Amino acid sequence: MSRDPFDWIDAHAERRREAGLVRTLRPRQAESTLLDLAGNDYLGLARHPQVTGAGADACLLWGAGSTGSRLVTGTTELHTELEAELAEFCGFEAALVFASGYAANLAAVTALTGPGTLIVSDTSNHASLIDGCRLSRADTEVVAHRDTEAVRKALDAHDGPAVVVSDSVFSVDGDAAPLTGLAAACRQHGAALLVDDAHGLGVLGEGGRGAAWAAGLAGAPDVVVTATLSKSLGSQGGVVLGPARVIEHLVNAARTFIFDTGLAPAAAGAALGALRLLRAEPERAERARAVALQLYDRLTAAGLRSARPDACVVAVRAPSAGEALQWAADCRTAGLAVGCFRPPSVPDGISRLRLTARGDLTDQQIAEAVEVIVRTAPRDSARSGELAGA
Amino acid sequence: MSRDPFDWIDAHAERRREAGLVRTLRPRQAESTLLDLAGNDYLGLARHPQVTGAGADACLLWGAGSTGSRLVTGTTELHTELEAELAEFCGFEAALVFASGYAANLAAVTALTGPGTLIVSDTSNHASLIDGCRLSRADTEVVAHRDTEAVRKALDAHDGPAVVVSDSVFSVDGDAAPLTGLAAACRQHGAALLVDDAHGLGVLGEGGRGAAWAAGLAGAPDVVVTATLSKSLGSQGGVVLGPARVIEHLVNAARTFIFDTGLAPAAAGAALGALRLLRAEPERAERARAVALQLYDRLTAAGLRSARPDACVVAVRAPSAGEALQWAADCRTAGLAVGCFRPPSVPDGISRLRLTARGDLTDQQIAEAVEVIVRTAPRDSARSGELAGA
Repeated sequence: MSRDPFDWIDAHAERRREAGLVRTLRPRQAESTLLDLAGNDYLGLARHPQVTGAGADACLLWGAGSTGSRLVTGTTELHTELEAELAEFCGFEAALVFASGYAANLAAVTALTGPGTLIVSDTSNHASLIDGCRLSRADTEVVAHRDTEAVRKALDAHDGPAVVVSDSVFSVDGDAAPLTGLAAACRQHGAALLVDDAHGLGVLGEGGRGAAWAAGLAGAPDVVVTATLSKSLGSQGGVVLGPARVIEHLVNAARTFIFDTGLAPAAAGAALGALRLLRAEPERAERARAVALQLYDRLTAAGLRSARPDACVVAVRAPSAGEALQWAADCRTAGLAVGCFRPPSVPDGISRLRLTARGDLTDQQIAEAVEVIVRTAPRDSARSGELAGA
Repeated sequence: MSRDPFDWIDAHAERRREAGLVRTLRPRQAESTLLDLAGNDYLGLARHPQVTGAGADACLLWGAGSTGSRLVTGTTELHTELEAELAEFCGFEAALVFASGYAANLAAVTALTGPGTLIVSDTSNHASLIDGCRLSRADTEVVAHRDTEAVRKALDAHDGPAVVVSDSVFSVDGDAAPLTGLAAACRQHGAALLVDDAHGLGVLGEGGRGAAWAAGLAGAPDVVVTATLSKSLGSQGGVVLGPARVIEHLVNAARTFIFDTGLAPAAAGAALGALRLLRAEPERAERARAVALQLYDRLTAAGLRSARPDACVVAVRAPSAGEALQWAADCRTAGLAVGCFRPPSVPDGISRLRLTARGDLTDQQIAEAVEVIVRTAPRDSARSGELAGA
């Protein structure tokens, strides 16, 4: 070999080591004694017997895989059933299910834009929306976080089709987008609004119908919503919800729909099981939000710096990436799993503990979690002030 | 609303209707009497009780979803086990599992390239590799199909890091890439070779170890392979196989790894079940290839135009998109499901029936399938000549 084609990888690895930013996988066991405030299983449904049972039954009945792309053999009646119930629940004309939320976002952004389209994108949007913008042939203007005026200005300056793209609940700090204001700006300019409700479905809106429902935008002819099946619904996959003609267009034009194997039956079945459980027990959504607020109230009362959560994500600021890592490790030693977001996964370079509220946490578990987080906090994490965006 | 932001969609839909290119989903039932030559379940494992049983068991034991990104809560010991066994089976140092093959390809292409890298990409590569090239910040040179000389020329003209990207078996016509020649060209120039073995894993190489194994490239320090868990392994998901330092780099840098929910346990469990079945019964790979050749031999003997299959995909040329659609519909009426590839899913604008061989087809089923395809063929589909690339 004349040259090692991967020698640059070692240099990257060395820089990561020096910066204390090496990521390693930490496999979890089936039965863990850790209290989990790290996953996105907001309603505690991933291991609910009705959900796992529905997943297992679907696997046995329909097969372990969907066997092909959705347009060939990868659509079962189970997929169609799930799509119909998701659309009805969220208040949209139609829905289309994907193998992942990432794929759903790539599909929605790329298929709804093209040369000449202006995309206006919040600077804190999820990586999959950003990749969608990059893959599209549209011009993207990135605007400041939750800045409706900046969105209006960008739309004002553009003559032609436009799509405003935003997370409903931002994944790092858990703060919500100003959907009502964004929708008004869009309507004034004839632009479409595309909302990623990954962290809102199952948590926000009446009985967990999502952020668009909560904002009175469900079923609007100019609004498209994406979401995951892997958070509140405890499964895997993604969905795009919108007007029937938009969904039909995605079937015909979205590359991550046409060229990807359909979602596995087990995942479709589990998501459908979770959706039906949520319909039967709508108070699960409210409880999840209440747990998040309890966590926030108690942690800030203890002097920690956090942003008031609009859904289930509670971010707590750490003084540095190294201290965030140590803090999360100390929590783990004390029996508590928390997320630790460090560069480059955070938009502003600020490291955080990322806690997720779950509707099935007991008051006792909440108290335990708060006690551990406060006890293990780095010395200078209690300075006054809140996270940006709070 | 000052303007309907989706009015352009109706115009697109109208053009599709006029061109006869409307795609509609056709949900299948759990128990179908159709003989399936359309799916990518090459070894017939998607509904094998050992595979569906392993998937169902994993769903019940580990939960319906992985609950988070792989770096937070989305890695279970089951994922680690699957990765270790895939790496060992395919002969690579390490493996990393993704929620889909699409995500695996986006990860591999984007994380292994950057500004200044030259990507040399076969014109018939899968959409996910193409999207990976678009997402990367590298320069991409698209070269003619299976043209090693063109690859050499592109590498000759570039001074700096380079990655040659190719499907191992091309999804439309089922023809194989010249991996040995590509690897030699790469080595001469110090370039890396990235091979998408979605249609090779489980079918090519000793006992189905894949195209890289068959070409003597398994475990090479300059070769990275991607594959799906949704074809021969009958499940869902994708995998990247390669040197340990490459996999570690992906863990730290690949956006579709870091920002996507981990593969659902049911899919990981089913894939592991299928892999173990294939290890125990390696003759399944050979049988699948033999079925494909039988289909090809009999169809061409009957005068149809096809390319000799290098794996399990057998493409049969149709005179037009409309006739391809009618042909596939007539097959379906006669009890046979076949794929129908039309623009824009085909690289050359030529419509085809796409048949997939399955190792579990009986001789009787093969004979039935051939009889139906020949009987329902459009009148002018039997002109002499073969598909391009044959």
